[in-house]
Amino acid sequence: MNQLEQIFVFIKEIDKVKNIQRQSLVSESLRRENDAEHAWHLAMMAMVLQTFANDHIDLLKVLKMVLIHDIVEIDAGDVFLYDLEARKAQKAIEAEAARRIFGLLPHPMGQELIELWEDFEDRQTPESRFAASLDRIQPMLQNYMTGGKAWKEHKITRDMVLKTNAHIGEGSKELWEMIQAMIDDAVKKGYLLP
Amino acid sequence: MNQLEQIFVFIKEIDKVKNIQRQSLVSESLRRENDAEHAWHLAMMAMVLQTFANDHIDLLKVLKMVLIHDIVEIDAGDVFLYDLEARKAQKAIEAEAARRIFGLLPHPMGQELIELWEDFEDRQTPESRFAASLDRIQPMLQNYMTGGKAWKEHKITRDMVLKTNAHIGEGSKELWEMIQAMIDDAVKKGYLLP
Repeated sequence: MNQLEQIFVFIKEIDKVKNIQRQSLVSESLRRENDAEHAWHLAMMAMVLQTFANDHIDLLKVLKMVLIHDIVEIDAGDVFLYDLEARKAQKAIEAEAARRIFGLLPHPMGQELIELWEDFEDRQTPESRFAASLDRIQPMLQNYMTGGKAWKEHKITRDMVLKTNAHIGEGSKELWEMIQAMIDDAVKKGYLLP
Repeated sequence: MNQLEQIFVFIKEIDKVKNIQRQSLVSESLRRENDAEHAWHLAMMAMVLQTFANDHIDLLKVLKMVLIHDIVEIDAGDVFLYDLEARKAQKAIEAEAARRIFGLLPHPMGQELIELWEDFEDRQTPESRFAASLDRIQPMLQNYMTGGKAWKEHKITRDMVLKTNAHIGEGSKELWEMIQAMIDDAVKKGYLLP
């Protein structure tokens, strides 16, 4: 298999990302969104919100990160954000998935994507902190736009949302302030338990 | 409305991209894919195929282009690639859609996205030529992966595919060669009419 054929094995493999359903709903159709849609929305948010990051960021790196961050779920599946026990067990499974799926690519391309994915998970760089903020903001926005359906279904409370998503402030203080106001409004509107 | 609020009007608006169904199917589930999924797949392809572009390209620009290129379809809808008459009428409607939707963003961000979209449509830069190649390769790949279901449904022939997609070679000679071999194989397998 030549390099190009090897790359197309990867391109075909990641089509499966479109079949990974998340908890958040899509506005209007009110079906659950999938990881490809989620990643696209994050990439668009990175483009239009980049100036709100706390630190100077390399936009190209942020885009790459948000585009690839959930590809591991082809093997590992999507775990609901508020299912804290399941999330712990998920770490090792996801690392194994990263090795298998990004490993389909020729060297050093695959290795670069593994490192980018690890960077995203570790949140130790300005880019990964900002990318992680967007990754938390987007589902909240989906929930807000769809009347809190996914929140209600899982009996999520205001405290759970504030606690689990506090690291948004590490990526962007300004966005975290805005989101906290949205959370208060969601409680007022009955989308989220107080 | 402050700048941040204005940007979030746009972020909410583009959620609608997830409801624009295309003709191509998604592997495994065999449902039609939507514009958000298509754009995400193009962005991933740009990342892993950038070295196959004919000219040196600015990857960040290509990523931005493929991420935004179909947002106009929120207003204009998706027109099937091989419906050449409908595609002509589409041009003006899409330009108006670009002004409305990207115009939701604060100045000069909206203007930049309008220009990026026009650049993509005109195919006069290395980035837009490469982005346009990917935009044609991806649906062909989906059709190939799903046994040519969308091709058969619309009675598409080998000649139509070769003619309508020849500009792939302007973005990447190497990818166009590979795709031509895939088209021949699709005819052999009965996915595509000879």
